[in-house]
Amino acid sequence: MAMTPLDSLLTCLRFPSVSTDSAHAEDVRACAQWLAGFLRDSGLNTTVHPTPGHPIVVARNTHRPGRPTVLLYGHYDVQPADPLDLWLTPPFEPRIENGIIFARGATDNKGQLMAHANGLRQTMAADGDLPVNLIALFEGEEEIGSPNLGPFLAAHRHDLACDVVAISDTGMVAAGVPTFTYGLRGITCCEVELTGPALDLHSGIFGGSVANPATELARLIAQLHDAHGRIMIDGFYDQVRPLASWEREAWSTLPLNDQAILKLTGSPALFGEAGYSSVERTWARPTAEVNGLGGGYQGEGSKTVLPSRAFAKFSFRLVPDQNPAVLLPQIEAWLQARTPATVTLTVRSGHSGQPYAMDPHSRHGQAAQAALRTTFDGREPALIREGGSIPIVQSFKDILGADTLLLGLALPDCQAHAPNENFPIANFEAGQRLNRHLLQELARV
Amino acid sequence: MAMTPLDSLLTCLRFPSVSTDSAHAEDVRACAQWLAGFLRDSGLNTTVHPTPGHPIVVARNTHRPGRPTVLLYGHYDVQPADPLDLWLTPPFEPRIENGIIFARGATDNKGQLMAHANGLRQTMAADGDLPVNLIALFEGEEEIGSPNLGPFLAAHRHDLACDVVAISDTGMVAAGVPTFTYGLRGITCCEVELTGPALDLHSGIFGGSVANPATELARLIAQLHDAHGRIMIDGFYDQVRPLASWEREAWSTLPLNDQAILKLTGSPALFGEAGYSSVERTWARPTAEVNGLGGGYQGEGSKTVLPSRAFAKFSFRLVPDQNPAVLLPQIEAWLQARTPATVTLTVRSGHSGQPYAMDPHSRHGQAAQAALRTTFDGREPALIREGGSIPIVQSFKDILGADTLLLGLALPDCQAHAPNENFPIANFEAGQRLNRHLLQELARV
Repeated sequence: MAMTPLDSLLTCLRFPSVSTDSAHAEDVRACAQWLAGFLRDSGLNTTVHPTPGHPIVVARNTHRPGRPTVLLYGHYDVQPADPLDLWLTPPFEPRIENGIIFARGATDNKGQLMAHANGLRQTMAADGDLPVNLIALFEGEEEIGSPNLGPFLAAHRHDLACDVVAISDTGMVAAGVPTFTYGLRGITCCEVELTGPALDLHSGIFGGSVANPATELARLIAQLHDAHGRIMIDGFYDQVRPLASWEREAWSTLPLNDQAILKLTGSPALFGEAGYSSVERTWARPTAEVNGLGGGYQGEGSKTVLPSRAFAKFSFRLVPDQNPAVLLPQIEAWLQARTPATVTLTVRSGHSGQPYAMDPHSRHGQAAQAALRTTFDGREPALIREGGSIPIVQSFKDILGADTLLLGLALPDCQAHAPNENFPIANFEAGQRLNRHLLQELARV
Repeated sequence: MAMTPLDSLLTCLRFPSVSTDSAHAEDVRACAQWLAGFLRDSGLNTTVHPTPGHPIVVARNTHRPGRPTVLLYGHYDVQPADPLDLWLTPPFEPRIENGIIFARGATDNKGQLMAHANGLRQTMAADGDLPVNLIALFEGEEEIGSPNLGPFLAAHRHDLACDVVAISDTGMVAAGVPTFTYGLRGITCCEVELTGPALDLHSGIFGGSVANPATELARLIAQLHDAHGRIMIDGFYDQVRPLASWEREAWSTLPLNDQAILKLTGSPALFGEAGYSSVERTWARPTAEVNGLGGGYQGEGSKTVLPSRAFAKFSFRLVPDQNPAVLLPQIEAWLQARTPATVTLTVRSGHSGQPYAMDPHSRHGQAAQAALRTTFDGREPALIREGGSIPIVQSFKDILGADTLLLGLALPDCQAHAPNENFPIANFEAGQRLNRHLLQELARV
C-alpha cells in the first residue's frame, strides 16, 4: 500500500456521497465500502452495518480490559454541491491550490474524518495497536439529521459502551489556534399560523373592517424582544446558566471581534442583547429567531388582497440549563395570551434539541486540551462554546452516557455547505497528529 | 331580427372573451365585432377601434346641439374562468336556473352592458332616436387594468366630450334595493424590503449577534396602527374629508350589518378603526394593509436560517381628499425614520389611483336617483360609497372632465371573478328599464 494520507483523502473526496439525494445512494454505499476497506487495511476489525438509510461503518481494535474506551465519530456523507455554477472546479474532482484542498466534503467532514483515520493507521503501523480501546463510528446520514444513528446506538449500546466520545466536526477560532468546544446551544422550533378570514379578501371591499392576519402576526413578533434585544416571553430566562467570569474573560481575548462578524455576515450593523459581547450572545445566550415569514401575495407587483392567513417559522436557540420540553408550552401560552380575538392561532411544534455543556476542566477535557497543545506546537487551546446545535452529541450523552470532546479543525472560511468548500493540507496533517496525541492523552486519564 | 334581449345576452356570454389570455385574443375580437353588429342593428353609428391591445367599440346616435351628451361605459371582456372544476356547468355555456343566469361575465360586465345595449335598442326602435346625445364606449381590457383606455380617451377627447358618464359595474346593497354609488376609495401601493446580512445566515452560528430582517420588518409593521386601529403615519389623516352627518345617518339604515360581514368573510371577529361602523371603515376611512409578507424559509418543516431579507407588500386605500402623490413620500419617510441601522430599507412604489367622490345631490346625481327610483317601483335608492377603486372613473374625470354616475346592478353574491358567476334575469330586465329612464332623466338636466 503506497497510498499517502493525502491520496487517501483525495480518493474519499471523489465519492459524491450526497446523503439527501436518492440518486446518489449507490455512491454513498460505495464510499462506506471504500472507507471500511481503508480501516480494515489499517488493521482494524471493521463492519459495514446496513441501516434503513445509509450504512454505518464501525471499526475497532482488540479491546482489552483496564484501559479506557474512546468512541471516535465522523461522517462520510456530504451536502449537495449545488449551486454548481459557483464552483471554480468540479466539487467531486478535488483540486489543490496553495496548500488548500477544494472539494465538497473537504472540511465537512471527510477531511477531518480521514485525518483521524490516517492517524489510526499510522499508530497501528508503528505500534501494532492503539493506546486505548477504540470504536470508530462513521455514519452516512449526518447531513440529513442522522435519522438512523439514535436507533443504532440504542440497539448496540453494549457494544458501543465507551468512556468518552471524540469528534472533529466543529470550528477553530482562527487558523493555527487549537480550539476546544465544550458547549453547544440547543434548539426548539415551532411554526405559528394566524388565520383570519376564510379566504383571501378583496382589500378594497373589506379592508378596514376585518383584521389582517399578516399585521397581527407582525404585532406578535414585535413583542418577542424589547428594544434592548431581550426576549419578553415570561420565564424564558429562568433556567439560563449565567456566564462564568472565567468564560467572559477567556472569550474577550479571542481573535473574534465585531469587525470580523460584520465582514463575515455583510450585515450593516450588529445587534443583540444588551450587556453581552457578540461572542457571548451567540455562544451563551438564547435567541428567538424568525426563520421564515409568509402570507398573502408573494409574486411580482401587487395584488390587493387581505390575506386569509400568515405564518412565521420560529426557532429558539437554547443554552444550558434551558429545556425545550419546559419552554415550548411557555412560548405557546405567551403567544396565545397575546393573540387578539380577530384571528385564530395555531402552533405546530417542530424539532428540539437539548443544549449541551461539559466541564472543560474535567479530566477528559484536560486530556483533550493537552493533545491540542501538543498538536499545535504548545499553543494554548481556545476554550469556546458554539452557537449551533449538534444533536448527535446529545444522543451520545443520552444513550451511551458519554460526554463528547469537540476538537474541530474547520476554519471560519472553509465554505462548509457552500460552493468551493476547502480544507488546508496543514489542518489535515494537524488532524493526523491530533489523533495520535489524543489517544495517548486519553489512555492516561 | 327575432332575437329577444335574453337571447342577445346569452349569445354575448358564449364568447370566451378573456382579455388576459393571449390564446383568447381572437375570441375577444369576435365578441367586439358581434357587439358592434348588435349596436349597428339597433340603429347606432358604430365603429370598432383597434388598439395595441383589444378593440374599443364606440356607438352613437345622431348628435344634436342643445341636448346633453351622455357617455355610457361598459366592458365586454371577462376574467379567466379557472378554477374550472369548481363550476357546476361550463362557464361559457350559459345556464338558467330559477331565473338566474350562470356564466362567466354574467354580472361582470356583460349582463349589465347588454341590459343597457338592449335598453338603447328598445328606445331606438320605439322612438327612432334617444333623448340625449349618446356615446356608448365598450372596451375589452377592463379586467387587465384598461391600459389603452386612457390613451384612447386622450386621442379622442373632442369626439368623446360629454356632460356625464354612466356605468353599471358596481354593486347593489341587496336584491331589489336600487343603489347609487357616489364615492370610491383610491389606492397607493408600495413594496418594502429590509435587507440585513448579505446572505441567509446559519441561525446557530450568528443568531443573537445580527439583527433579523424579518423581526425588524414585523416591528415596523406593528407600528403602522395603534391599538385602536388608527394609522400612525405622521400626517396620514390630514387630508381625510370627514364623514357628513347625513352619510352616517343614511348608512346606519342599510341592510349591511356586522353579522353579514362576518358571514361573508368567515373572520372570527371584526376589527377596525375605533369610532366608526364597519361600513364607514370600508367606504370612508383609509387603510394601511399588508397584502403580502415574505422572507426566509417558506417550505415545509423548518430551516434554521437568519434570513438576509424580508419584504412586505403594502396597499393604502385612500379616501377623499387624500392624494397618493403627497402620501407616498410621507409613508416612505415614516418607514425610513423607524428603520434601525442594522438593516437597509428599500421602498418600491407601485400603482396609485385617486379617491373619487361626486356630490350625490348634484343635478346629475339627482337625475340618476330618479331613474333608479322609477326602475325599482318607487323604492328610494341607497346612497353609498364603495371601498374599492375604479381607475377608469378617474380617467373620465381627468381626461374628459366629466363625473361618473355609478348605477350598479351586481348583487353581493354574484360571484364576480369567481366560479359560478351569476346574474338574475330580474336584474337584467331592471337594467333595460334603467337605461331608458336614465336617458330620459338626464335629458331634462
